[in-house]
Amino acid sequence: MADIPSLVRDLVVANRILAREAVVDAYGHVSVRHPDNPQRFLMATSMAPEMVEPEHIVEFNLDCTPVRDDGRPLYHERFIHGGIFEARPDVQAVVHAHSEDVLPFTIVPVPLRPVIHSGSFMGATVPVWDMADRFGENTNLLVTGMEAARDLARCLGNDNVALMRGHGFSAAARSLIEVVRMSVYVPRNARVLMNALRLSPDVKALHAGEIATRDAGYKPYSLETRRAWRYWAHKAGCAHLVPDHPVDHAHKPWGSD
Amino acid sequence: MADIPSLVRDLVVANRILAREAVVDAYGHVSVRHPDNPQRFLMATSMAPEMVEPEHIVEFNLDCTPVRDDGRPLYHERFIHGGIFEARPDVQAVVHAHSEDVLPFTIVPVPLRPVIHSGSFMGATVPVWDMADRFGENTNLLVTGMEAARDLARCLGNDNVALMRGHGFSAAARSLIEVVRMSVYVPRNARVLMNALRLSPDVKALHAGEIATRDAGYKPYSLETRRAWRYWAHKAGCAHLVPDHPVDHAHKPWGSD
Amino acid sequence: MADIPSLVRDLVVANRILAREAVVDAYGHVSVRHPDNPQRFLMATSMAPEMVEPEHIVEFNLDCTPVRDDGRPLYHERFIHGGIFEARPDVQAVVHAHSEDVLPFTIVPVPLRPVIHSGSFMGATVPVWDMADRFGENTNLLVTGMEAARDLARCLGNDNVALMRGHGFSAAARSLIEVVRMSVYVPRNARVLMNALRLSPDVKALHAGEIATRDAGYKPYSLETRRAWRYWAHKAGCAHLVPDHPVDHAHKPWGSD
Amino acid sequence: MADIPSLVRDLVVANRILAREAVVDAYGHVSVRHPDNPQRFLMATSMAPEMVEPEHIVEFNLDCTPVRDDGRPLYHERFIHGGIFEARPDVQAVVHAHSEDVLPFTIVPVPLRPVIHSGSFMGATVPVWDMADRFGENTNLLVTGMEAARDLARCLGNDNVALMRGHGFSAAARSLIEVVRMSVYVPRNARVLMNALRLSPDVKALHAGEIATRDAGYKPYSLETRRAWRYWAHKAGCAHLVPDHPVDHAHKPWGSD
Repeated sequence: MADIPSLVRDLVVANRILAREAVVDAYGHVSVRHPDNPQRFLMATSMAPEMVEPEHIVEFNLDCTPVRDDGRPLYHERFIHGGIFEARPDVQAVVHAHSEDVLPFTIVPVPLRPVIHSGSFMGATVPVWDMADRFGENTNLLVTGMEAARDLARCLGNDNVALMRGHGFSAAARSLIEVVRMSVYVPRNARVLMNALRLSPDVKALHAGEIATRDAGYKPYSLETRRAWRYWAHKAGCAHLVPDHPVDHAHKPWGSD
Repeated sequence: MADIPSLVRDLVVANRILAREAVVDAYGHVSVRHPDNPQRFLMATSMAPEMVEPEHIVEFNLDCTPVRDDGRPLYHERFIHGGIFEARPDVQAVVHAHSEDVLPFTIVPVPLRPVIHSGSFMGATVPVWDMADRFGENTNLLVTGMEAARDLARCLGNDNVALMRGHGFSAAARSLIEVVRMSVYVPRNARVLMNALRLSPDVKALHAGEIATRDAGYKPYSLETRRAWRYWAHKAGCAHLVPDHPVDHAHKPWGSD
Repeated sequence: MADIPSLVRDLVVANRILAREAVVDAYGHVSVRHPDNPQRFLMATSMAPEMVEPEHIVEFNLDCTPVRDDGRPLYHERFIHGGIFEARPDVQAVVHAHSEDVLPFTIVPVPLRPVIHSGSFMGATVPVWDMADRFGENTNLLVTGMEAARDLARCLGNDNVALMRGHGFSAAARSLIEVVRMSVYVPRNARVLMNALRLSPDVKALHAGEIATRDAGYKPYSLETRRAWRYWAHKAGCAHLVPDHPVDHAHKPWGSD
Repeated sequence: MADIPSLVRDLVVANRILAREAVVDAYGHVSVRHPDNPQRFLMATSMAPEMVEPEHIVEFNLDCTPVRDDGRPLYHERFIHGGIFEARPDVQAVVHAHSEDVLPFTIVPVPLRPVIHSGSFMGATVPVWDMADRFGENTNLLVTGMEAARDLARCLGNDNVALMRGHGFSAAARSLIEVVRMSVYVPRNARVLMNALRLSPDVKALHAGEIATRDAGYKPYSLETRRAWRYWAHKAGCAHLVPDHPVDHAHKPWGSD
């Protein structure tokens, strides 16, 4: 059995990091699949991520109903998470956010693509989902049910990040720490690309082989990754929630790979 | 009768949030119409918004004379508020600010328009008021009397936000919380639009139906909105001024709609 | 006789505000003319402005020798201040800074000009001084003697701000508070102008009459100005150095005009 | 013999300054050559620079093996430092960082060049190293061995800064304090140049003679430089690690030149 209290604590840290790094503000959310039951995932009740505490974390079924409904309000867009977990058994964690510097790429015909090494994890292609394509021009742009969520998941396909027109992005990864890292570096990559394109139309993106090599070499529980997690937690004021000798949620000690 | 102390407290929180979110600096102000007497409104005396306390809130008539003049200095541009409250019975709260990232749109022939979902509340059109059009090229650009204020209110018409050339913006809304939210997201929408236009002239703005749908669905005292208010107050260091079970100023408990 | 301890305290506050508002960093300085002896001025010894305390303020002759040389190190570029005080009897205070967002305008043939009301005090024209024009292409770009300082002052002429190619700006004003205010808003105006020019070449600058009207109406010790000073001091952590009932250094109570 | 504890303390301060000034984040590192043994250098173990303490500093041989291997994890890219120290006997300190605002210049055919006086120390030319030129398009972009490090050092040649395509920069200098200063001002110069190029293609860079004159006049232990170091340490919360009367590591009291 997985160590759920430790996973809940990591999810709290993820919320705080995303807030401190300005990936989310009052809105946006992060979830993690239940390690013992892939038909469930964990996420906070409706809360600004910076204010999430362990007691706010609840368990959801993949259709986004809470396993135990205690009447607390839930994120209207929790369906984004259910839709992606349902479609992608390989995905262990999801972030949805409205990061300001990603938004320009959701409304222009210029693709977001990785141009810096820390951005490689978004993958070579980043599709843009325009809710109007299927649901028309009179929506409120929010993903508040499984039908829209499944359409978004279809657009994401096997990629790691889908942009959402005029709204934000959703990111999917193999671990909580990886999805947080991607969510921090995708906006940075977006800023670098915007600045580069203002200097010249002739921008060198990462080579496909570089993206693939970095992807193959990524270990979410490596010491290098742990270094970033610990630092971000320190900046977010919750270093005390990061144990000195953490275990990963596949039961390996951190730093062992 | 309305709960005026609680409204005053909310107005203090609004001042602090606007300062913390860099919508205002030493200048700029926020007001709310008196819930029991639509011929009056509440606003601070002349103060940097970050430093406003409950004892600084005073009551004004719509002509911007203070109901009880105790000699404290008043904002020179308080007339903006009186002018809008006079012209627009539907408006319950007004912000005037000089937000840096909105200013470029006040001096170029490129319209500010909503391109992100959180910017939808500015409405489909955002007029630009150029004081010189009616008052000539020798003003100090400030709205320091009812004549200029009424001209600005005419320009605003039934819209939610009017830009003011070389000066800033004025926003009008159905509640204090809505006008604060709009004031935070209008500059963000401006930044996203500026960045998008640098990438491509072919920018997808929100569809008219999306703006209308979001507007129809907006509930200023919903749990979603309360989440943002609480978060911003937390960031601004005044979470203690936000009660756990607030009432709206139309006498409904928050979160009941 | 002027109240010198109170002027010294104001100069300390000016240093701290300029640091907090990112006008200066480790470098940059602010000075004020001696109110009783126009042949002298006050400025800190060589220090990062954020760390200036009253005991660091010393008195200089207009040739930038210290009135009492106690061996403490002095700013190499103090001559900028002496040169401007010498050439401009109307000037009471000077700032020299390297503000990042002003720098682009020092190296391109696009003039900095006031486009927002808070930027009006820079005046209608802002000359650019290129040290190489007179001193050749082998200088270290610093103004470390009276000859260069006098050349800079000639370029400034009767204007309020001179840009310095690849280096920064120098601002001159009728009071300490006015020069600080100008130094905060000149970079903001520069950012707005840069952003506007990226949207359209067709930018509406302030009208000459607006600049003149605002200049004529400016009162450095008005309540409106005091509001900003107090707010900036609060942000800079030195509100305790701002008295409730300050006097101006022309012996009028603040807020009396 | 050099005062190693004091050098270690300075290296800790350098780490903290680089973090506070956003030159590094969880990644990036700074090293200093051993003053008594030029075949060795000092650097932290694998840590976010903001969290480095004296006990994390270890001694390395130029091939980047630790002199005493106690099993603590080491930076994967420590070879950058060894490669530069090996090729450049004049270099006393090295920084490697991923500064966001330098990155655009690593992926476009527009050269980074000094345009502001504080940027002069990067030198007249800043080469760009593209790892793919020699190592192909399937690397992970990291310099994790001496072969890549030596290739980077060759590209650096006798310059002070080499950009690394899609990755960051490496800077080399005659002292710890100089390399920190360069690392703070290179990103600032990059921002100013980006902003200038958006205003006009006709940008005035520093003249070769200005760069040379400033370089000739630079004294890493001058009072002017000490002023910046002390200020940055103050901002980074480690002013207590900066002694009032520091010695340089060539055994001269600070401020004596």
